[in-house]
Amino acid sequence: MTFVNVGTLGVLPGKRDELVAILTRRSQVLADIGCQLYEVGINEAEPDAVFVVELWESEDAHTASLQLDSVRAAISEAMPLLSGKMGGLRFRVVGSPLRD
Amino acid sequence: MTFVNVGTLGVLPGKRDELVAILTRRSQVLADIGCQLYEVGINEAEPDAVFVVELWESEDAHTASLQLDSVRAAISEAMPLLSGKMGGLRFRVVGSPLRD
Repeated sequence: MTFVNVGTLGVLPGKRDELVAILTRRSQVLADIGCQLYEVGINEAEPDAVFVVELWESEDAHTASLQLDSVRAAISEAMPLLSGKMGGLRFRVVGSPLRD
Repeated sequence: MTFVNVGTLGVLPGKRDELVAILTRRSQVLADIGCQLYEVGINEAEPDAVFVVELWESEDAHTASLQLDSVRAAISEAMPLLSGKMGGLRFRVVGSPLRD
């Protein structure tokens, strides 16, 4: 069942673009292990935050991704940029008005 | 630029499935006016909440959707089910590790 992970990552002032660069670095392995969508974004209301929305073929696929060397490396690269303010939500998809 | 809308909709106890049914009702018009993704879901941690993640081709497309008769009808149909507890976030997409 499709699993959605939404995250808000607080960054230290001036570090937003650096975090965006890490999160948007091309990664075929994510798709290979079941990531169906991974959108990274920003907004004007929160200049010290980066947002992610991820769709995974299952919660297990998402959990497994956190063990990947490339993901662990990206996380450790990103840690010094983070303010510690984190948020988000997770849910399993039960339907869509765009499909039967 | 792709626009993401994430929403948490609090529902009155026992009304979750009813709200899911409204939100997942097939709606070709959403796609016609620029909705690229619309996922509706639930989780065990918050039994009185329904979650939505929407991707739109632009923020304007999302704003315009709120004027559609079918969307306004669905909103008024859903209102009596809502607890008033709402949350969410919005952002514009700046990239993805799944594409260049």
